[in-house]
Amino acid sequence: MSQQGALTVAVAQYAPAVGDRRGNLELGSAWVRRAAEAGAQLVVLPELATSGYTFSSEPEAAAAAEALDGDGAIAAWQALCHELQLYVVAGVNERVTDRERFNSAVLLGPDGRVGLYRKAHLFFEESFYFQPGDLPFPVFDLPFGRVGMLVCYDLWFPEAARALALQGADLIAVPTNWVANFRRRPVDDHGWTMGNYAAVGVATQNQVFVAAADRIGEERGVEFVGCSCVVAPDGSMLAGPAARDRETLLVVRVDLEEARRAKARTPHNHTLGDRRPDLYAAAAARAAVADALAPSAPPAVAAR
Amino acid sequence: MSQQGALTVAVAQYAPAVGDRRGNLELGSAWVRRAAEAGAQLVVLPELATSGYTFSSEPEAAAAAEALDGDGAIAAWQALCHELQLYVVAGVNERVTDRERFNSAVLLGPDGRVGLYRKAHLFFEESFYFQPGDLPFPVFDLPFGRVGMLVCYDLWFPEAARALALQGADLIAVPTNWVANFRRRPVDDHGWTMGNYAAVGVATQNQVFVAAADRIGEERGVEFVGCSCVVAPDGSMLAGPAARDRETLLVVRVDLEEARRAKARTPHNHTLGDRRPDLYAAAAARAAVADALAPSAPPAVAAR
Repeated sequence: MSQQGALTVAVAQYAPAVGDRRGNLELGSAWVRRAAEAGAQLVVLPELATSGYTFSSEPEAAAAAEALDGDGAIAAWQALCHELQLYVVAGVNERVTDRERFNSAVLLGPDGRVGLYRKAHLFFEESFYFQPGDLPFPVFDLPFGRVGMLVCYDLWFPEAARALALQGADLIAVPTNWVANFRRRPVDDHGWTMGNYAAVGVATQNQVFVAAADRIGEERGVEFVGCSCVVAPDGSMLAGPAARDRETLLVVRVDLEEARRAKARTPHNHTLGDRRPDLYAAAAARAAVADALAPSAPPAVAAR
Repeated sequence: MSQQGALTVAVAQYAPAVGDRRGNLELGSAWVRRAAEAGAQLVVLPELATSGYTFSSEPEAAAAAEALDGDGAIAAWQALCHELQLYVVAGVNERVTDRERFNSAVLLGPDGRVGLYRKAHLFFEESFYFQPGDLPFPVFDLPFGRVGMLVCYDLWFPEAARALALQGADLIAVPTNWVANFRRRPVDDHGWTMGNYAAVGVATQNQVFVAAADRIGEERGVEFVGCSCVVAPDGSMLAGPAARDRETLLVVRVDLEEARRAKARTPHNHTLGDRRPDLYAAAAARAAVADALAPSAPPAVAAR
């Protein structure tokens, strides 16, 4: 395992509490410390780890938000990254103005804030409280490799993970709040939830590591399914899926160089070089024409 | 289950023999008859079902090829579709000229040939014998719904399945020859091969059915892994994975309308309408600029 790519990654699965900024700060800090004790150099916390998920009103969502330069959880976790000399990816309710918030993921490191991503694809009632993300899938250079971030529902949009891979991402950190609702069978006989299959799909399509930290518990009728996981570039489940209903810290040693080696799967293939942008563009043009020619038919692609 | 979307789909898993055009014709016909007896309206046969996979020379690949309008397997299976009043998707070694062939999938029906797809992403030594496909992911209207085709390695390119979904595909038929080689663990503890995860990934990202017919057996040191499967739009495994090493016919009743309903996952979401083409385009532009600015560094995207 080369020094450059070697990394101990941890994902923390627990239950943030809706609206409890102070409690969520302390909870997240405790999990980061626990991960540090286990040797983690990168710790992933769940989506909206600062605020909880299920807001009941705009004032509640606003009161639970954190400005990036505020003195709440982001500042506290940043200080912790300095103290413990590690990196943290955390889902945050990001305050921009009184009325403008994003469902974001921050990447914090020993020397301050390294990166920011804002969830591009909003699920269910998130659009009541958050703006759709405006950052085109940034990738960040860290000492051990290149890291991108996605949040939950983003995993179902293969374009998002592909955008990260094409910019050289070796690992995608995924703060998530996978819900049990809206699905017939939240967790199957293997103990996998649909998010695990989505994570494996994204990993194997892009030959990247995926580290997904889900939450557990229930908030106002919305149940979360745990099943946090770390997946290898060949689609292997390296850690997890964690239990559906128990706090869990997954810790696993990886070599991020594997994400690069896996792309040269045979002497004749490079999985990103084998792409056919010419055909993808032709197909996209054809889909657009079909939509334009059939405006009154049920559209293949619904309007937002 | 509405009449419109109701469909009994079958995938046939067996071992074609390299170079044996006559034998492969008869083998495929027998599997189509067996599927018809089981009530199938759509039967999927493996990749290169007419020719076998592992050619050792250009003349051998040429001799094993079928012209679309020839009197070999394609004509025979077309006649069978008429006789049995069903549809067949079959992988064929398609002859265009003496020197030009495609690794294709044909869609045959009761009234003749309905569709053609040519594998866009060639794996391992296929590029010695086949041209890269030149058809931008066509989708075909059948009485029970809209069907697209992909072949094997195409499943690892999320752009391909996405192109089919954006053109309204309800089901993706996948003739495949998944290989055991090039992977540390061809089949995992669940009895799944990497292709199963790829199929589930594609199904759940696009809310489409995926019906993948793999082959079994060994040809000149290349081992195939079976594990044929039918996956639902929510990622559930409806049939299979089949055994790694046994002939199998999977037959399953589906409602293709589910592929459309699944896209409206919540009252606030349509999974194709939720796409963010603005961000995807911005990310693609940034990846291209990064490549252009660092011509001497290891490219994020290798040249073909």
